Amino acid sequence: MPGYNHLFIPGPTNIPEEVRMAMNVSMQDMRAPDFPELTKPLFEKLAKLFRNSTGRVFLYPSSGTGAWEAAIQNTLSPGDKVLMSRFGQFSHLWVDMAQRFGLDVDVIDCEWGTGVPVEKYAEKLKADSAHEIKAVFATHNETATGVSSDIKGVRRALDDANHPALLMVDGVSSIGSIEFDQDAWGVDCAVSGSQKGFMLPAGLGILSVSKWALDAHKRAEYSRTFFSFEDMIATNDQGFFPYTPATQLLRGLDVACDMLIDEGLENVWARHNRLATGVRKAVDAWGLSLCAKEPKWHSDTVSAIMVPEDKDARDVISTAYSKYNTSLGTGLSKVMGKVFRIGHLGWLNEGMVTTAVSVAEMSMIENGFDIKAGSGVGAAIEHFTSTTAQSGKAIAAE
Amino acid sequence: MPGYNHLFIPGPTNIPEEVRMAMNVSMQDMRAPDFPELTKPLFEKLAKLFRNSTGRVFLYPSSGTGAWEAAIQNTLSPGDKVLMSRFGQFSHLWVDMAQRFGLDVDVIDCEWGTGVPVEKYAEKLKADSAHEIKAVFATHNETATGVSSDIKGVRRALDDANHPALLMVDGVSSIGSIEFDQDAWGVDCAVSGSQKGFMLPAGLGILSVSKWALDAHKRAEYSRTFFSFEDMIATNDQGFFPYTPATQLLRGLDVACDMLIDEGLENVWARHNRLATGVRKAVDAWGLSLCAKEPKWHSDTVSAIMVPEDKDARDVISTAYSKYNTSLGTGLSKVMGKVFRIGHLGWLNEGMVTTAVSVAEMSMIENGFDIKAGSGVGAAIEHFTSTTAQSGKAIAAE
Amino acid sequence: MPGYNHLFIPGPTNIPEEVRMAMNVSMQDMRAPDFPELTKPLFEKLAKLFRNSTGRVFLYPSSGTGAWEAAIQNTLSPGDKVLMSRFGQFSHLWVDMAQRFGLDVDVIDCEWGTGVPVEKYAEKLKADSAHEIKAVFATHNETATGVSSDIKGVRRALDDANHPALLMVDGVSSIGSIEFDQDAWGVDCAVSGSQKGFMLPAGLGILSVSKWALDAHKRAEYSRTFFSFEDMIATNDQGFFPYTPATQLLRGLDVACDMLIDEGLENVWARHNRLATGVRKAVDAWGLSLCAKEPKWHSDTVSAIMVPEDKDARDVISTAYSKYNTSLGTGLSKVMGKVFRIGHLGWLNEGMVTTAVSVAEMSMIENGFDIKAGSGVGAAIEHFTSTTAQSGKAIAAE
Amino acid sequence: MPGYNHLFIPGPTNIPEEVRMAMNVSMQDMRAPDFPELTKPLFEKLAKLFRNSTGRVFLYPSSGTGAWEAAIQNTLSPGDKVLMSRFGQFSHLWVDMAQRFGLDVDVIDCEWGTGVPVEKYAEKLKADSAHEIKAVFATHNETATGVSSDIKGVRRALDDANHPALLMVDGVSSIGSIEFDQDAWGVDCAVSGSQKGFMLPAGLGILSVSKWALDAHKRAEYSRTFFSFEDMIATNDQGFFPYTPATQLLRGLDVACDMLIDEGLENVWARHNRLATGVRKAVDAWGLSLCAKEPKWHSDTVSAIMVPEDKDARDVISTAYSKYNTSLGTGLSKVMGKVFRIGHLGWLNEGMVTTAVSVAEMSMIENGFDIKAGSGVGAAIEHFTSTTAQSGKAIAAE
Repeated sequence: MPGYNHLFIPGPTNIPEEVRMAMNVSMQDMRAPDFPELTKPLFEKLAKLFRNSTGRVFLYPSSGTGAWEAAIQNTLSPGDKVLMSRFGQFSHLWVDMAQRFGLDVDVIDCEWGTGVPVEKYAEKLKADSAHEIKAVFATHNETATGVSSDIKGVRRALDDANHPALLMVDGVSSIGSIEFDQDAWGVDCAVSGSQKGFMLPAGLGILSVSKWALDAHKRAEYSRTFFSFEDMIATNDQGFFPYTPATQLLRGLDVACDMLIDEGLENVWARHNRLATGVRKAVDAWGLSLCAKEPKWHSDTVSAIMVPEDKDARDVISTAYSKYNTSLGTGLSKVMGKVFRIGHLGWLNEGMVTTAVSVAEMSMIENGFDIKAGSGVGAAIEHFTSTTAQSGKAIAAE
Repeated sequence: MPGYNHLFIPGPTNIPEEVRMAMNVSMQDMRAPDFPELTKPLFEKLAKLFRNSTGRVFLYPSSGTGAWEAAIQNTLSPGDKVLMSRFGQFSHLWVDMAQRFGLDVDVIDCEWGTGVPVEKYAEKLKADSAHEIKAVFATHNETATGVSSDIKGVRRALDDANHPALLMVDGVSSIGSIEFDQDAWGVDCAVSGSQKGFMLPAGLGILSVSKWALDAHKRAEYSRTFFSFEDMIATNDQGFFPYTPATQLLRGLDVACDMLIDEGLENVWARHNRLATGVRKAVDAWGLSLCAKEPKWHSDTVSAIMVPEDKDARDVISTAYSKYNTSLGTGLSKVMGKVFRIGHLGWLNEGMVTTAVSVAEMSMIENGFDIKAGSGVGAAIEHFTSTTAQSGKAIAAE
Repeated sequence: MPGYNHLFIPGPTNIPEEVRMAMNVSMQDMRAPDFPELTKPLFEKLAKLFRNSTGRVFLYPSSGTGAWEAAIQNTLSPGDKVLMSRFGQFSHLWVDMAQRFGLDVDVIDCEWGTGVPVEKYAEKLKADSAHEIKAVFATHNETATGVSSDIKGVRRALDDANHPALLMVDGVSSIGSIEFDQDAWGVDCAVSGSQKGFMLPAGLGILSVSKWALDAHKRAEYSRTFFSFEDMIATNDQGFFPYTPATQLLRGLDVACDMLIDEGLENVWARHNRLATGVRKAVDAWGLSLCAKEPKWHSDTVSAIMVPEDKDARDVISTAYSKYNTSLGTGLSKVMGKVFRIGHLGWLNEGMVTTAVSVAEMSMIENGFDIKAGSGVGAAIEHFTSTTAQSGKAIAAE
Repeated sequence: MPGYNHLFIPGPTNIPEEVRMAMNVSMQDMRAPDFPELTKPLFEKLAKLFRNSTGRVFLYPSSGTGAWEAAIQNTLSPGDKVLMSRFGQFSHLWVDMAQRFGLDVDVIDCEWGTGVPVEKYAEKLKADSAHEIKAVFATHNETATGVSSDIKGVRRALDDANHPALLMVDGVSSIGSIEFDQDAWGVDCAVSGSQKGFMLPAGLGILSVSKWALDAHKRAEYSRTFFSFEDMIATNDQGFFPYTPATQLLRGLDVACDMLIDEGLENVWARHNRLATGVRKAVDAWGLSLCAKEPKWHSDTVSAIMVPEDKDARDVISTAYSKYNTSLGTGLSKVMGKVFRIGHLGWLNEGMVTTAVSVAEMSMIENGFDIKAGSGVGAAIEHFTSTTAQSGKAIAAE
C-alpha cells in the first residue's frame, strides 16, 4: 500500500533518518586498532544517558529479554529471595524468568492498570530485617498497560528500611524517553533495549549497572558465558567485545545517543510528556478510558486505551493496519481485545501523533464506535496549540 | 528536530521505501552488455504509464524544465507561432521559455485560479485556417494554483478545427497521479519529471512524445545536443544513452513504475481523488476557499488554500516548518502570502493527509485564524470513513 | 582513507549489495498479521540450506556464541558427560563454555593445526558401552587455525559404536560456505551465525536442530528463557517470536538465503574451494606454510598463514590496515604473532581475492619478508586462469 | 554473481561509503528557509576545489555534456569563431556540439594519443591579431585515449599573444583528481560532472566560471532557459535554484567535497599519480603500450591500453565482465577493439588497483595473450612497495 507504514507500537519505534544513514554501512573489522574509537566514547555516552556515574553499561547482541537475563545471571544466585510485582504482561514475563532461574520469588500481584506497589514493598523490606531479600525488581514502565511506576519511591523504601537489596529496574520502554536517573534513584541494574527510546532496530540488550551490582557480581553463582560480565569487562575495557558485536547497531546507537544528548534529556522527557498528553486528551474526548487506573500511573511512552465492553479492540487494530497502513499495539494476555495501544515514544513529533490519533479515530468509527469525527484529534490539536509556548521553548533548546 | 520531516509540497514528494532501497546502490557501468536489461523494459513501462503506444519516452538527467526545453528544441523552429495560456507561475514560466526561444507566442492570459481556456483555444484554432499555429501548449496541472485543466477538451478543439498543430502538455505535477491518456487525448509532447507522481528525487526530466512529434522533429531547426532526440534515439534503441545516465535514478524509476503498474493507474487516480477530497473537505470546514475558482478546476494533486485578507499565508508555512517539521508549499509570485499549498500526490495515504491537515490547522490557529481545533481534520476523517467502502475496493485491487 | 576498506577477516564478511538494500528499511510491527509472510518461508529456506529435514531452525538475536549456549542449555543437563576436542581458539572457547555450564567435559587436546580426532572419538565412543557420553562436540571449521574437520567421520564413529550421543557441530565459519549436510551427517545441533557464510552483519545466532535434539530438549534441565526452545517453538510456529526480533537482520537474511539458493549450494562450495585454492597457491609461492598441518585440514573459508620465526605476523596485519585499508585476521592466543589469516568466505570473487593476496604480499615485502613482488598473486592468477573452464561452469549455473 | 562489481571505468567511479550514506535520504523542501545552509557552503567548497576565486560555480541537474552546453550557450553567440582540437571521442563530441550550435569552429585534428597542440594554438592566436577567435577550447583529459593536456601551456599561449579569447576547459575526467588550478591557469569555463573525481552518481553537470566568463555572458546571444546563468545567479545568490534541484546529489556532493578538502587536493593528486603509475608499470611489464604516445600525455585518471594487432580488446573486456564481475572501459570510435581502458580515479586505493590489474591480466591470459601470470600486478606491487615512504606521507596527511 502506498505511503508510510505508520508505526505506533511501543517498540520498535521509528528510526531517525540520521540513524538509518549511519547503519547503511559496509562491514568492518571488530578487532581493528581503531575500533575503540567508536566503542569507548559510546560507552561514555550511554552512561551519561542512564545517569550512571558509578558503574558501567553492557551491550549485548540480544533483546531486552536478554538484558533481563544478563542482570539475573550476573548479580544473583540460584535460590536467592527476590521481591517482585506483577501487573501486566511484561512484569509477568519477568517474574516467569526469575522463577525459571530458580530464584525464590515473592510476587505481589496487583491489578492490571496499577504499578509497583511501593508501600507494600516498603512493608516487606522493613519486615526483612535478616536481609534475606537479595533484590527488588520494579518495572518502570509496564508496556502492556501503559503504566509508569515510582522507582524513586522504591529506592526510598529500600533506604528507609536500610536494606541492602539490589534494585533491578526494567526500563525497556522508559529509558531515553521519560525521566530516569540511575545515580539519584540508586538503580543497580537498569535494563533496556535498542528498539524503544534508543530509536534503533531491535537487536541490542542494554544493561546499565551500578558499582554495587558489580560488587554483587563477584558473589553471583549462575553459569554464564554469552551474558557474562567478566568476559565483557575484560574486553570492553580495551574497546572490544568477547565475541563479534553487532557493529551496524553500534554505529546507529552512537548517532542515536548523540541525538538524545543534543536534544537534552530534559527536553526529550518534556517532548514525550507533551505528545502523550495530546493522546490522553484525545482519549478523554472520545469518552474512553485508559487502562492505567489513575493519572499517577499514566505512561508518557504508551497509552493502553480501553474499548467499550461491546467492542473488540482487535477490530480497531485490524482496520488501522489493513486500511490505513498503521500499526497500533495490541492488547496482550489478560487485556487482549479490551485495549489497543498507541506507542508515543522515540523519534516522534506532533504531526505523527495526529496521524496516530486520526487513524485510531477512523478505525473506531468504521467499527461502529460512537465517536464524532475530529473529536479526538481536535482535542490533541487544542492541547498542542494551547501549550506551544512552553513546549516550544523546550524544543527550541535543542 | 525529532520525527519525520512531513513533506506536503507538490514535489519533491515522499519517496517509497522500495524506491529508496533501489537507489541505495553502488555504481555500475552504463556501457555494460546487460545494462539494456534495465533500460529496455523501463522504457516500455514508462510508455504504458503515459499510455503512449505510438511514440517513445525520453529520459534526461535534468528536471521538468529541461523536459520542457527538450520538447521545444526538438519539435519546433525559431519563429514558429504557438498558442499558450497563462494562469499561474508554471504556465507563466513556460511562456517565458517559449519567448526566450524566439517562438511567436500567442498568449492568452487568464485569471489565476482558472485553467486552460478551451473555448478560446477552439476559436483561435478555427480562425487559423492557414495553420500558422504550429503547437498548442496546455498546462495540465498548474502547480502554483492547484488547477487542473481539460486536456481532452483541447484535443477536441484541435480536432474540431481539423488543425494539425502539435499538442504540448505540461504534466509535471499530474502524470502518474491523475488521469492522463496520451493516446486517447492525442498529446504530442507530454512533459514530466521524476520528483512528483513518479515518487523519485528530482533529477530526471521525462518526455513522452507521439509519432507526430517524432515526425515534426525531422523539421525542427533548433540547435541542440544535450536534449537532442536524434542522439537519444540512436543510443536508446540499443538500451544505452548518448552520455552518462543517472543510473541511480533509473534504478529507482524502474521500481516506481512497477509500483504504479501494480497498484493500477485507475486505482492510483482514485486514491489521489479520495485524498484530495479529504483536504478539500477540511478547507470547507475551516471556512476558507481554494485558489481554484470552480470545482472543475480542482486539482487532485495540490490544493492552494487562500487565507483571509488580514492574514499572511507565509506565517502559516513558517509555523508549520519551524514548530512542526512540516513543509507546506508557499504561494508563488502573484499569490505569495495569499495562499499556502498542500501537495497531496505521490506515495501518500490517509494517515499522511491527516498530518498535513492537522499541522495546517495548528499553524493557522497559532497565527490567530478563527478556526476550531479538529474542524478540518474532522471533516477529512468524515470523508475517509464515510467513503471507505468504495475507495477500499480500489485500494484492495492493488 | 579513500577506497574500499578491504575486509578479509573470517567474519564479519562482506555484505552483498542486495542484502544491504534489504536492510535499509524503516521499522515494522513484529506482531502484524502479515509478519509471518516473511518469517515462515525464511525458516524453510534456512532448513534447506542446513539440509535439515527432520527438525527446525532457531534464530536468536545474539551471536554464534549465543547459539552455542542455546544448544547446550536446551539439549543437555548439568553434569552430563560430553566429548570435546580442542585445537584452536574457538574450540577452546567452546570447551570453556561447556565447563562453565557444569558439563563433565572429556577434552581431547590436539595440536593446533589439526582438527577433530575422529579415531580417538571412535575409540572413546566404542569404549562407552554404558552410553554415559550424552553429546559429542565437533568444530567443523576452526576459524583460528584455518582447519576443517571431518564431521561425516564423527557421525560414522557414532554409528559404528551404535552410540546415541547427540552430535553438536560448530559450523559458524563453515555453513553456507563449505559442504555441510545436517541430514546426511546426522548433526543434531548445528550452530552458526549471521556474519559469515550468511553474509550479514553480526547479530543473529542461528541454530539448526534435528528431531533427536528436539527430543533431547524434553529432558534437558538447564534454566533458560532467552534461549529457550519452548518459547521459540510456541511463537515461531505462528510466524512470530517470543520477544522483539531483529527484523532488519531477518529482512537481510531472507535475501541472503535467496542468493545462496539461487547460486546453488554445490556451486557456492565449489566457488569457495576455487578461491581458497588460489590463496593456498599464493602461500606456496611465497614459500610459507599454513597453520593447517595437512591438506586434509585445509579450510576453504579461512587460511592461517605462518610467518617465518624472525617475523611478527602482527606487523603484516598492521601495515595492511594502516597503509592499505585492508583487514586481515590476526593470530589468536597461542598463534598470536605467528600467523595472519585471510578470510575467503561469503560474498567473494576472484577480483577480491587478488586484492587480499596482493595486499598481504605488499605488507610482507614492506616488513622485510623475502618475497618476490607478484609471486603470490601470480600463482593465484595462474590457478584462476588455468581452471576457469571448470569453475566457470559452476558459476554459470547461478 | 557474488562479490563486488569491480568498477574500473573512467566514470562513474566508485562511491565513497560516506557519500552513499549521505544520499540515503528522504526528500526535503528545496524552498525551505534552511535550505541555503546546505547550498551556500557547498558553492564555497566547490569554488575552493576548482581554485576559482573570481567567479562562481553552477550546478545543473544534467551531465558533463549539459555543462558543456551551458558553457557555450551562456558565454558565446552563434557564428563566433572558436579554436578547438580533436584527438579522441570526447574532444570529437565537443567539436560536434560547437558545430551544431553554429559556432565557426577552427578544428585542429591531432593524432589520437596526443593532446592539445599548444604550439599550434600559440601560432593561431598570435596570427589572430583581430581577435576574431572568441574562445579557445581545450580538453584537459581525453577520457577515450587516456591523454592529459597542458592547460597551463594554453593559457601561456593566450597570454603570449595577449589574446582576450575565453579559455574553455573540459575537466570532466580531471578535476578533483589531477592538478587543476582555475585561477592560476586563467580558465574561464571549467566543465565537470558529478560521476568522476567528485565520486558521485551521474546527474550533476558542474560548471565553474571566471569573472571574465561572467562578463562575456552579458554579451552572449544564445537562447537558453534550463542552462541560463541569469536564472541560476538570481536564485543561487539566495541559496536556491530556479527549478527543483537534485537534492539527493547535493547532499552527496557536500560530503564528497568535504572528503576531498580533508584529504587535501595535493594529496589527492599525488594519490592518483601513485595509483596510475602502478597501472603503467603493469602495462610495461605486460609488454604492451598505452594509447598515449608519450609520457607527457599520460593521464593519471585513465589508461587506454593497446592490445596486439591480432587481438580484440573487446574480448578482454567481455571476459573481465562476464567471468570476473569487473567493468573495464571499452575503446570508443576509432580505437574500438584496439584498446581497453582502466579508470583509476576517484575513491580508489592500491588494493583496488591490484584487482584492476589482476583481472585485466587474467582476462588477457584467457584470451591467449602472451603474458606471464603475476607480471603486471607484480610490477604494480613493486611500485607501491618501493615508493611507500613518499606516498605514505601524502596519505598520512589526510
